[in-house]
Amino acid sequence: MTPEIAGAAGFDWQLAFLFLIASAAAGLTGVLFKPGAWYESLVKPDWRPKNWMFPVAWTTIYVLSALAAARVAPLAGNAYAMAFWAMQIALNTLWTPVFFGARRMGLSVAVMGLLCCAVLGMLWTFWSLDGWAFTMILPYAIWLGLAAPLNWRVWRDNPGANFSAEA
Amino acid sequence: MTPEIAGAAGFDWQLAFLFLIASAAAGLTGVLFKPGAWYESLVKPDWRPKNWMFPVAWTTIYVLSALAAARVAPLAGNAYAMAFWAMQIALNTLWTPVFFGARRMGLSVAVMGLLCCAVLGMLWTFWSLDGWAFTMILPYAIWLGLAAPLNWRVWRDNPGANFSAEA
Repeated sequence: MTPEIAGAAGFDWQLAFLFLIASAAAGLTGVLFKPGAWYESLVKPDWRPKNWMFPVAWTTIYVLSALAAARVAPLAGNAYAMAFWAMQIALNTLWTPVFFGARRMGLSVAVMGLLCCAVLGMLWTFWSLDGWAFTMILPYAIWLGLAAPLNWRVWRDNPGANFSAEA
Repeated sequence: MTPEIAGAAGFDWQLAFLFLIASAAAGLTGVLFKPGAWYESLVKPDWRPKNWMFPVAWTTIYVLSALAAARVAPLAGNAYAMAFWAMQIALNTLWTPVFFGARRMGLSVAVMGLLCCAVLGMLWTFWSLDGWAFTMILPYAIWLGLAAPLNWRVWRDNPGANFSAEA
């Protein structure tokens, strides 16, 4: 399977708009389920990013990964790339309600683990399809390199704040 | 753009597994955010489906739509089909936490409206790509034909139960 000419015929903004709506759905969870008094009370490692960095990082990641998807979507041989993108946007939308909504920290670590697998799958498949798309998802991979260990540490260091401990 | 031979070379279960994980992420929201005393107290129309029908319908829809995505993903010319699929799985994952978690019924109607647009987009794009995939998303479209009006009616008939009215 070789890339189609259509893939090089210019960027399709209508197509990008659909992926941006998917990203916006994921981003909206951060507006609805915010870190409040509960999150502030948790034991957190010193190396964690500042609170203001999270919305900045995620907005950047959501926009760039949607634009990367719009570059990859018209290319032949993109089946796994599109499957990994769909998988990451569902898991990303799920994570915030699981952690901040349901406060199921153990489950949130499992969701985060699957999300990391999906983004690794994107790196692997985008690499061979489109160099720009690959570059545009690097911030996502780098940020998860911080967010995943943070998620794990917060879960491990706050056993009393878990849903299962409360129930 | 013509369908590739790869699309007819047999069903790719590994690929389907990734779409099934995305569907499972959406389905997990229904396990975490259940209708409880709050939902039972709401005014609901008589024509609504029975409570037990919801998990049966959604499980069927999640499995069939994931398998449909795996049929369409290897086909050329599937850019919009894949974008609509990604859009629907993000919006679907978002809806339950918005309605049952945050209890933002007005916002849930907006999310449902966008979800209907995404599924209409899937019907439109899958139709020309693969007849089986189109058939497999028909239950989704039919169920939304019930769920969307129900969502709107519950929002309209329970102004006091809205987040904005509570705040």
